[in-house]
Amino acid sequence: MATLDRITQPSDLRGLTDAELDELAEQIRERIIAAVATHGGHLGPNLGVVELTMAIHRVFDSPADRVVFDTGHQAYVHKMLTGRAGAFDGLRTEGGLSGYPSQAESDHDVVENSHASTSLSWADGIAKANALAGRDDYVVAVIGDGALTGGMAWEAINNIAADSDRRLVVVVNDNGRSYRPTVGGLANHLASLRTNPRYEPMLRAVRDRLTSMNVVGQTAYEVLHAMKKGLKDALSPQGMFEDLGLKYVGPVDGHDREALEKALTQAKQFGGPVLVHTFTTKGHGYDIAVANEEDQMHQAKAFDRLTGTALAVEPASWTSVFRDEIVRIGDERPDVVAITAAMLSPTGLDAFADKFPERTFDVGIAEQHAVTSAAGLAFGGMHPVVAIYSTFLNRAFDQVLLDVALHRCGVTFVLDRAGVTGDDGPSHNGMWDQSILQVVPTLRLAVPRDGARLRELLNEAVAVDDAPTVVRFPKGPVDTDVEAIDRLGGCDVLAREGDSDVLIVAAGPMAAVALDAAQRLREHGLGVTVVDPRWVKPLDPALVDAAAEHRLVVSVEDSGRVGGMGSVLAQMLADAAVTTPIRVHGVSQEFFDHAKRAVLLERMGLTGEAVAADALQRLG
Amino acid sequence: MATLDRITQPSDLRGLTDAELDELAEQIRERIIAAVATHGGHLGPNLGVVELTMAIHRVFDSPADRVVFDTGHQAYVHKMLTGRAGAFDGLRTEGGLSGYPSQAESDHDVVENSHASTSLSWADGIAKANALAGRDDYVVAVIGDGALTGGMAWEAINNIAADSDRRLVVVVNDNGRSYRPTVGGLANHLASLRTNPRYEPMLRAVRDRLTSMNVVGQTAYEVLHAMKKGLKDALSPQGMFEDLGLKYVGPVDGHDREALEKALTQAKQFGGPVLVHTFTTKGHGYDIAVANEEDQMHQAKAFDRLTGTALAVEPASWTSVFRDEIVRIGDERPDVVAITAAMLSPTGLDAFADKFPERTFDVGIAEQHAVTSAAGLAFGGMHPVVAIYSTFLNRAFDQVLLDVALHRCGVTFVLDRAGVTGDDGPSHNGMWDQSILQVVPTLRLAVPRDGARLRELLNEAVAVDDAPTVVRFPKGPVDTDVEAIDRLGGCDVLAREGDSDVLIVAAGPMAAVALDAAQRLREHGLGVTVVDPRWVKPLDPALVDAAAEHRLVVSVEDSGRVGGMGSVLAQMLADAAVTTPIRVHGVSQEFFDHAKRAVLLERMGLTGEAVAADALQRLG
Repeated sequence: MATLDRITQPSDLRGLTDAELDELAEQIRERIIAAVATHGGHLGPNLGVVELTMAIHRVFDSPADRVVFDTGHQAYVHKMLTGRAGAFDGLRTEGGLSGYPSQAESDHDVVENSHASTSLSWADGIAKANALAGRDDYVVAVIGDGALTGGMAWEAINNIAADSDRRLVVVVNDNGRSYRPTVGGLANHLASLRTNPRYEPMLRAVRDRLTSMNVVGQTAYEVLHAMKKGLKDALSPQGMFEDLGLKYVGPVDGHDREALEKALTQAKQFGGPVLVHTFTTKGHGYDIAVANEEDQMHQAKAFDRLTGTALAVEPASWTSVFRDEIVRIGDERPDVVAITAAMLSPTGLDAFADKFPERTFDVGIAEQHAVTSAAGLAFGGMHPVVAIYSTFLNRAFDQVLLDVALHRCGVTFVLDRAGVTGDDGPSHNGMWDQSILQVVPTLRLAVPRDGARLRELLNEAVAVDDAPTVVRFPKGPVDTDVEAIDRLGGCDVLAREGDSDVLIVAAGPMAAVALDAAQRLREHGLGVTVVDPRWVKPLDPALVDAAAEHRLVVSVEDSGRVGGMGSVLAQMLADAAVTTPIRVHGVSQEFFDHAKRAVLLERMGLTGEAVAADALQRLG
Repeated sequence: MATLDRITQPSDLRGLTDAELDELAEQIRERIIAAVATHGGHLGPNLGVVELTMAIHRVFDSPADRVVFDTGHQAYVHKMLTGRAGAFDGLRTEGGLSGYPSQAESDHDVVENSHASTSLSWADGIAKANALAGRDDYVVAVIGDGALTGGMAWEAINNIAADSDRRLVVVVNDNGRSYRPTVGGLANHLASLRTNPRYEPMLRAVRDRLTSMNVVGQTAYEVLHAMKKGLKDALSPQGMFEDLGLKYVGPVDGHDREALEKALTQAKQFGGPVLVHTFTTKGHGYDIAVANEEDQMHQAKAFDRLTGTALAVEPASWTSVFRDEIVRIGDERPDVVAITAAMLSPTGLDAFADKFPERTFDVGIAEQHAVTSAAGLAFGGMHPVVAIYSTFLNRAFDQVLLDVALHRCGVTFVLDRAGVTGDDGPSHNGMWDQSILQVVPTLRLAVPRDGARLRELLNEAVAVDDAPTVVRFPKGPVDTDVEAIDRLGGCDVLAREGDSDVLIVAAGPMAAVALDAAQRLREHGLGVTVVDPRWVKPLDPALVDAAAEHRLVVSVEDSGRVGGMGSVLAQMLADAAVTTPIRVHGVSQEFFDHAKRAVLLERMGLTGEAVAADALQRLG
């Protein structure tokens, strides 16, 4: 029986010999590589924290002590060490282990949210609750250097540092990267800490000499103190964290188990909030990952473990259509600049950045700053394109509303992964944007149904220079082009046959569902018109007139059904006293466990069959 | 003619003598006090920046150089120096000067948004645009120490510091306070900078001695460098800002015009991003404000300038009802804790804090951290009550959704200033929460119509321990209690007379409008039922049955009409195939210039008269 399979809880780790621990680390890496090679998942980040996670679980006592993983995609090792090694083969399959921590899976898990930079706030809250309840348990937050660039991590540090008697350990897992090398002043500072020499004996000698220096007058103490601090910075650099009042331990080699355990034990014994700075290598132990310059196989689809190459050839994706088109636009429009929040390649801005490096800004995991600095750029005469995953725009709702829209700034938001994504669990589904953006005055929102429309609508969006525009599209392969047979105001008519019985208004990629439903309804002798509004905000008033001429209106969208396109269409009908009934189909307003996108869509009735059946029932 | 009235543009400042400048400062203070004593407004912050604003406009060349004020409520002096001194008497009156910067008012204004911590991101964007366009203009951002606790300020600093050749000056207006003393590690650090002695001659001597020290071996350079850095910190403290790569100038006495101009000139000549640290006194020059321990008359209503006391006695407000009730709840429930984002008194948490200091957490201007640390507290067994202005919750939408709701945390949000507030302009209206919170699964949202219902619903909210709850109420005097005459499911029936013609569903304080409309409709022989749903999310299904029995449904809410209560009610009717038409009344989805609340409500038809007229028209 492998050592790994004898670990049913963290305390089992404590009885192991050094040799067994080495063996265990190897088995963990082996199992991570095998599972991700089969099901896909986060590879680089998890290979980088094998020793760190083992050390944490040997020094602290989970679940009494709480281990909070920031962003959660580096919790595979934690899962294995907390009784889930046996289930690891089923990673990211429906009913199997989630790719993120999950309270439903284990008492050892806390934060399920995959959005970055939250762990320190969670830890602060739990530590406060511990103190109030008189519990002397520890909270350990594990946060990457990339996630530290997010503003809420700073808000938390400001609070944690101010309270000196909480049992809270912040472990900075510093690999110098999020997806790409981490950017900004903080990253430079962390790098300076990493490279700082530690000439202890030498410095001790100098310090002795200093204390014997003949400094006169009332300032002697201050001067001496200042010099000592300078020395201390060289000896054991503290820098800004100490300035904020947070004790700093490190830097520690994150693949040296012994050094890690020593540092964590020191942090534990300190009693107050401590930051432990450890540097790790993404992909450590799997040379192919380490050698991957792009992102150390940050997140991989199923791959051949001997070569690291993906097993399936990726079909052309929505992202790749955007990647090409934004370069073309950049050629034509010198005022177009691009902004990403630490996701240059995943959002498809990499080609633009290669061609126009001076017009590309990676701001770190900092969505709020991405949006408001875009407002500033627009004020200065540029047209920024902010490329971001739909779910992460939630982070900057206020900035879209009150910096961009209120100030009449022409900024285009390109939302990738909009709609149900499935595999990555509830916090990755891009099912919120279409509803919350509906309330933003002046904002225009386009939903392309295929590659041709993505190119077309992106160009229309960047042509608007006095209001925010949004183009949203889903994850995965781009849909086959569907040409319009007619126009209805600014909308595309995709099908029109027979009497005016049913009007189906389908947002973008839901065109396929709508056309399928239309086919089924026609088989029941009903006349059906299928319209793609192209711009779902504002909706074209021509839709209201068309609705008045039909017996039933059906709306279909791949976004939350509350407050979305269908909801607004219903409101427009009511405002115009059009009494044609409407059926609104969209993503039901709930959190979904991880599952394949197709499975989820079918379950919530977003299929041609279900939409047609519902319409038939409504028409009696 | 007063010196002030001869200033039509900032360049006029440059020809003035010292005596004239002193005179000008006095005239500015005089005019601020007079205007705020008459119309109300921000007093303390503006009196604190008279010399600073004058110095900025003498050293920099607005509007070519851009001056960005964070939060905007300290821009009165700027307004006077940019040609608006003559119009200052009409401050905050409809058609008169706005209480915040306004691009419509002047080319010298940039950011109109009153939400804190945005200025550095704006400045970063404008500086980037300047660089791309080849302009060598400066951007000056003026930010308070309070606003620096907001995460997005940190995101911006991380980006600004990384780019060394932008012409960007960050002026930290450090008065040690936002509303209350600023909290956290950063505030402590700023304080340490302020109090650091500057014994320049002494230190120079020591430094000379150091360089002559006989340090042997290869590390000599590093050691010497470290010691010098320690000395430099004492001489001219740089601390964490330098660690991040941002040049630091200061600290400077913010009421010493000459010192300010010297520091700003030094910053200007440096060429790269610089932080100028200046300390000021809120209320400076008006002893009554300085002596006000609560908040230095941060924001004042019309007052007697000889005594500083408000002219009108405030009637009991929604805030005061909450203030008393949360203390009562705190007595009963030791697990209830309170969280504020730097607004203890304005939100009415001060009494709770006095009684339960260890259960009260002021996290600084850090809404994201407020919400996620609340999730952590709930996870640890507490029931947090987060008291916040409605408009500021926008900042933490993602955290409400994915930290609190996804993790099934019992956290209660108390949203003050919900609905149209009016006077403070577009970014203060609390007209978004009811729509964006509709999409959050499991969240429950209550809208009390009067003080009795606020107490009742607050108690119901804190009793929910596995989901977020929200209680929202407007600014100003609390409405007179209106007792229910009956119940309909969980809803209160406030009136029911005659046939079942019109069903009016009114959210909370809109009860008065609904009852007025009902009276008018009855005068036309119509039977009307008025219902207050109490909880607008989820809406009671009993409303759907009631709607089916009426000829017309009318909904009224003091929040954006897109995606709000009425919109959801319409969707429920459509889902249930209830064909009764519905008229949705709410705040129209646009940005409003400052005006009195009553004026705005009337303009958008949120009056009994308008609601009744609309219903009559719909019924034919």
